[in-house]
Amino acid sequence: MDKPHDQLASILADDMTAVNDLIKQRMASENAPRIPEVTAHLVDAGGKRLRPMLTLAAARMCGNTTPYHIHLAATVEFIHTATLLHDDVVDESAQRRGRPTANLLWDNQSSILVGDYLFSRSFQLMVETGSLRVLDILANASATIAEGEVLQLTVAQNLKTTEDTYLKVVRGKTAALFEAACKVGGVISGADEEIVDALAAYGDALGVSFQIADDLLDYGGATVALGKNVGDDFRERKMSLPLIKALSHADDTELEFWKRTIEKGHQEEGDLDHALTLMAKHNVLQETRDDAVFWAKKAKKAIAILPVSDIRQTLMALPDYVVSRAS
Amino acid sequence: MDKPHDQLASILADDMTAVNDLIKQRMASENAPRIPEVTAHLVDAGGKRLRPMLTLAAARMCGNTTPYHIHLAATVEFIHTATLLHDDVVDESAQRRGRPTANLLWDNQSSILVGDYLFSRSFQLMVETGSLRVLDILANASATIAEGEVLQLTVAQNLKTTEDTYLKVVRGKTAALFEAACKVGGVISGADEEIVDALAAYGDALGVSFQIADDLLDYGGATVALGKNVGDDFRERKMSLPLIKALSHADDTELEFWKRTIEKGHQEEGDLDHALTLMAKHNVLQETRDDAVFWAKKAKKAIAILPVSDIRQTLMALPDYVVSRAS
Repeated sequence: MDKPHDQLASILADDMTAVNDLIKQRMASENAPRIPEVTAHLVDAGGKRLRPMLTLAAARMCGNTTPYHIHLAATVEFIHTATLLHDDVVDESAQRRGRPTANLLWDNQSSILVGDYLFSRSFQLMVETGSLRVLDILANASATIAEGEVLQLTVAQNLKTTEDTYLKVVRGKTAALFEAACKVGGVISGADEEIVDALAAYGDALGVSFQIADDLLDYGGATVALGKNVGDDFRERKMSLPLIKALSHADDTELEFWKRTIEKGHQEEGDLDHALTLMAKHNVLQETRDDAVFWAKKAKKAIAILPVSDIRQTLMALPDYVVSRAS
Repeated sequence: MDKPHDQLASILADDMTAVNDLIKQRMASENAPRIPEVTAHLVDAGGKRLRPMLTLAAARMCGNTTPYHIHLAATVEFIHTATLLHDDVVDESAQRRGRPTANLLWDNQSSILVGDYLFSRSFQLMVETGSLRVLDILANASATIAEGEVLQLTVAQNLKTTEDTYLKVVRGKTAALFEAACKVGGVISGADEEIVDALAAYGDALGVSFQIADDLLDYGGATVALGKNVGDDFRERKMSLPLIKALSHADDTELEFWKRTIEKGHQEEGDLDHALTLMAKHNVLQETRDDAVFWAKKAKKAIAILPVSDIRQTLMALPDYVVSRAS
C-alpha cells in the first residue's frame, strides 16, 4: 500500500506537472541569475510538495472550476520556499533536504534577498487569480507565519515556555500555511463556507500534528526518518514539545540539568542520553505522541463532512501517516 | 524658504497623522512583542517619510475620493521599513538614521523575521483597499526591489560593472518603490492613464536622482549631510556611480589601485584620499552630478502635465533639492 502522500502525488500528477512548470517559469529573473540558481537548488532537491498538493486536493474535492488552483498551489510553494530560505539563515542551518543549505553554498545575503523575491513572486501569482478573498487569506497567513517565527525566537531557550505558547508558535510557523493552502483551494472553487471552514480546520490540525511528529522524531520517536539526526533539537536548545513536557515533570536536580544544557547551553558528552533517560522516566515521548494523535483525529474529523472520494480518503489517511512516521 | 520636503509635510500634515496612527496600529502584534519593539526603533527614529508623502501627494493632486490613500501610504512605508531591516543585515550595517541598527541592538534573526512580518502587513493593508490594480503595482514593485538587491549583491566588487547595470540596480532597489508610491496614489484616486503614467515616470526619475545624489554625497559631494561619513561606500567597496565613472577613465596604474582597494579590499591609510584625487583628476564627481541633474529634470518634466497646485509646485522643487544636497 502506497503512502498517502504518494497516492496524492499520483492522483494529482497532471496538476502537479502544471504547478512545477509554473514554479520554474516564475522563479526566473532576467536581471539577476543568482535568483533562479538559489531557488533551483532548493526546489530541485525535491521536498514533498505537500502544501501545494493540499491546495490542489482541496480544489479538486470542491469541483474546481477555474485554472487558478495551479497558481495558488505555486503561490503556497513559493511562500514555503521563501520561509525555508529565511529559516535556514535564522537557525544558521547547514543542511536541508539532505543537501547543504543555500546560506552555506552562497551566503546569508543571497538567502535573505532571494527569499524576499520569492515572497513577492508569490503575491504576484495570487494577484493574478483576481480573488481578493484569496489574497486576504494568504496575506493573513504570511503575517501569522512571521509572527510565529518571531515568537519562537523570543522564547528560545526559555525554560518557562508553556504548551500554550508552543501551540501559538506551531500554529504560526507551521500550521498557518497548511491551513491557508487547504482553505484557498476551496475558496477558489467557490465552495460553501461550511466546506471552506472544514478545509481550514483540517489544514490547521494536520499542520499541528505534523510539527509535533517532527519534534518527536527529533528525540528518536523513530530511528531512521527523513535524514534527521536524533538530538538536533537538543543540541540547538529548541523549546520543542517533548522538552516542555519533560520540564513540567522535572524535580530540582532535573531542572538543574535542563538549565545547564538548554538555558546555558553547556552540553557535555552523555547529556543527550541523559535527556532521553529523563524523557523515558516521565513517559514524555508517549505523551507527545498522544498529542500528535489528538490533532490527527481532529484533522480527520474536520473533513468528514466532505463527500466521499479518492482524494478525501487519501487526506483521511495522511494525518495517521504523519503520526506513524514518528512512532 | 522651507525645504520642499518640509513644505510637503506641512501641506499633508493631517493625512500624515492618519498614516502614522495606522502604522502604529498595524505594527502591533499580540503574540510577539518583539515585533513592535524592533519596528518602533526604526519608525520612531523618524526618517523623512518621503515615500508615503509621495503617495498622499499624488492622491491629493488627483482629487482623491477614497480614504485608502492613507492605507497605501502606510503600505509603502511598511515595505520601505522591511527592506531597511533586511538591507542592514545584508550590509552588516551598524548605524541607520543616526542610531544603532536593529541587527546590532537585537540580532540578525529579529531583523529578518520582523522584516518578513512588516512585508506581510503591507500586503494586508493593500488588500483592504480592494483594488487589484494597486495590488498588482505593489507586488511588481516588491519583486523589482528584491531583484535589484540581488543584482547589486552579485555585482559587488566587480570592477567591470557598467553604468547600465548600475541603473538596473538603482531602478530596482531605490526607484521602484518611489515609482509605485506615486503611481498607486493616482490609481486609487481614479486618475486617467496619462496622469498615472506621468506620476510613475516622476517617481522613477526622482528615485534615480535620489540614489545618484546619495552616491555623490558619499564621496564628499557635500561635507555635512545626513550624518553620512565620507568614504563609507569606498570602505564597503560598493560599485557606486562615481567609482564606475572613475574606472572608465582609469589608466593601468589607476586600475591597479582600484583592483587592490575595491576588488581585493586591501585598503591602507591614505587610500580614500588617493581615490578622491583620482576622481577629481577625471572630473568624476561633476559627471555624476550632471547625471543626477539629468534625472531631476526628467522628473520635473514628467509632472508638467498635471494641473498647477501647491503640491505640484513642491514636487517640482523636490528633485532640485535632492540634487542640491549633494552639491
